Amino acid sequence: MSRELTIALVGASGVVGAEFLRTMEERETPVKELRLLATSRSAGQTRRFRGEELTIEETTPAAFEGADVAFISASTAASQELCPIARDAGAVAFDDSSAFRQAPGVPLVVPEVNGVDLRDHAGIIATPNCSTVPLVLALWPLMAERTIRRVIADTYQSTSGAGTAAMAELTDQIGALMDERPVVIENFPKQIAFNAIPQVDVFQEDGYTKEEWKMLVESRKILHQPALPLSATCVRIPTLVSHAIAVHVDFDAPLAAAEARALWGGQAGLTVVDDPVNGGYPTPLDCAAQDAVFVGRARQDVSSPNGLAFWCVTDNLRKGAALNIVQMVEWMLEDGCL
Amino acid sequence: MSRELTIALVGASGVVGAEFLRTMEERETPVKELRLLATSRSAGQTRRFRGEELTIEETTPAAFEGADVAFISASTAASQELCPIARDAGAVAFDDSSAFRQAPGVPLVVPEVNGVDLRDHAGIIATPNCSTVPLVLALWPLMAERTIRRVIADTYQSTSGAGTAAMAELTDQIGALMDERPVVIENFPKQIAFNAIPQVDVFQEDGYTKEEWKMLVESRKILHQPALPLSATCVRIPTLVSHAIAVHVDFDAPLAAAEARALWGGQAGLTVVDDPVNGGYPTPLDCAAQDAVFVGRARQDVSSPNGLAFWCVTDNLRKGAALNIVQMVEWMLEDGCL
Repeated sequence: MSRELTIALVGASGVVGAEFLRTMEERETPVKELRLLATSRSAGQTRRFRGEELTIEETTPAAFEGADVAFISASTAASQELCPIARDAGAVAFDDSSAFRQAPGVPLVVPEVNGVDLRDHAGIIATPNCSTVPLVLALWPLMAERTIRRVIADTYQSTSGAGTAAMAELTDQIGALMDERPVVIENFPKQIAFNAIPQVDVFQEDGYTKEEWKMLVESRKILHQPALPLSATCVRIPTLVSHAIAVHVDFDAPLAAAEARALWGGQAGLTVVDDPVNGGYPTPLDCAAQDAVFVGRARQDVSSPNGLAFWCVTDNLRKGAALNIVQMVEWMLEDGCL
Repeated sequence: MSRELTIALVGASGVVGAEFLRTMEERETPVKELRLLATSRSAGQTRRFRGEELTIEETTPAAFEGADVAFISASTAASQELCPIARDAGAVAFDDSSAFRQAPGVPLVVPEVNGVDLRDHAGIIATPNCSTVPLVLALWPLMAERTIRRVIADTYQSTSGAGTAAMAELTDQIGALMDERPVVIENFPKQIAFNAIPQVDVFQEDGYTKEEWKMLVESRKILHQPALPLSATCVRIPTLVSHAIAVHVDFDAPLAAAEARALWGGQAGLTVVDDPVNGGYPTPLDCAAQDAVFVGRARQDVSSPNGLAFWCVTDNLRKGAALNIVQMVEWMLEDGCL
């Protein structure tokens, strides 16, 4: 891993951008040059990286010239436009949006699960939705011993999944309610303070939201199970960081909770916290600012002879976004395919 | 319904107690005499009922003498003790705790579903847990057309389910965080502000919480389906009022979302809000201070050929507690069995 990279980071001023900087510092990503990019609104701001003050510049096609990799974490529309530009400039574009996840020839990867898919790309690589990452990482080790027949996943998603402004909207609304000022709603379809909104992203014709559909199609692609039956209900709740998921999975044969815990225990990237009587289960607050996907509350799903119910939580900004992308780069450097 | 009742209300100072007073005023419950009862701590406080100032007295056995009915909404331990005392004094005890729900000879009733069970009691009648009520009311009309094979229910429960002090704990914790004071945890196993706690009530040996077990055994009793397969994950979220549930139900044959909506539309006590593209789905805030159980987001469960997924929300203090009990009394007066 002696190769050093020139990295263009688009979305450097955002909440995931900050996680990229922290993650690369912590994991000693081999950086030759780091270019911080954002919209003109954020240009001129500075960010610290390894003790140096770097200035955010406006994203232009020229900014990708000579870059080895581009990390793109902005809007889906921005990704649509910028990923091909980065690729055509010779960089490998790692995209945090849903723009290319389902495109043929674009690997969609959680390195611990399907790292090998990274060998076969055409300049654009996608990281999964922040709710999909923990789900597939928790399911993957179980698939070594059982075939999955069905997955139900109901989510408890934090406001940071919708960006910095959305997090501020939650705390602003709480402040307004406490001061008896009017509540302003901008980033969510309804008031999020003291509420739960069963809508993340837009609705499709079939009654599912796009977020719910993403969990289905992305899980199928990552797990190489193109017909996996999976149904999700995605709900935004008034938390700041970390997404949680209540999972009910059916296998081809029973899988004891103890066996699931043993399989999880051997999986890189997963941490088992499962001693419920003594408070041993993960919550969003416990898992914020942690790298791992946390699993707990494993128990037989009493509604199905071959069922297992569990609960998993992860920091949606880390393993759900920046960390997963940095880990893809590490995997490829180690493998020699980058 | 010309009979007028002498009512003893235990738990009059609590959050459900307040809902009893409001509900009986609103629904014109035929009250001859109302006795407000609580622990010695709250004795001496006053509450208004129909323009009169009533004083809360300490609960003693003598307080039930001559009462026609007793509404008991305090702790499970208090119910254990007081229900038999009220019954032996000649009152019909309506209990809001889990103390007697599974006891043989104790009807467990949602009047719109199994009101007829009220005819066969021995002095104690139980109201279901506040998460069970909306679930069975939403399932019931669908059972007219289909047999249920399996239910998965993941909940989003408000702090008021744990009482007045628990609601204050949420807002106190938020205030402490904003002022950078230490957070005090008393009513929940972990900090509830900006968090989600996958524990409501205590854990059992099988890994389920007692709340999750209640949803199973109570649904079976109310729906007269003693072997109904049902698995729940019950989660406390930082809301104040209303419980929401993401439900996935399997039938013996497909049931189109449109047909489910039509069946719900004909069910007393249910309100369908299901126009998601235009924001038409219920949230806890929308449903607070409402009597109905609200259902929406009906769609085929894409993980099962005979599956239906939906979302339901109800004010846990109203239909989840006080209202359901008052409606039981109405049903019995109408029926002549009280």
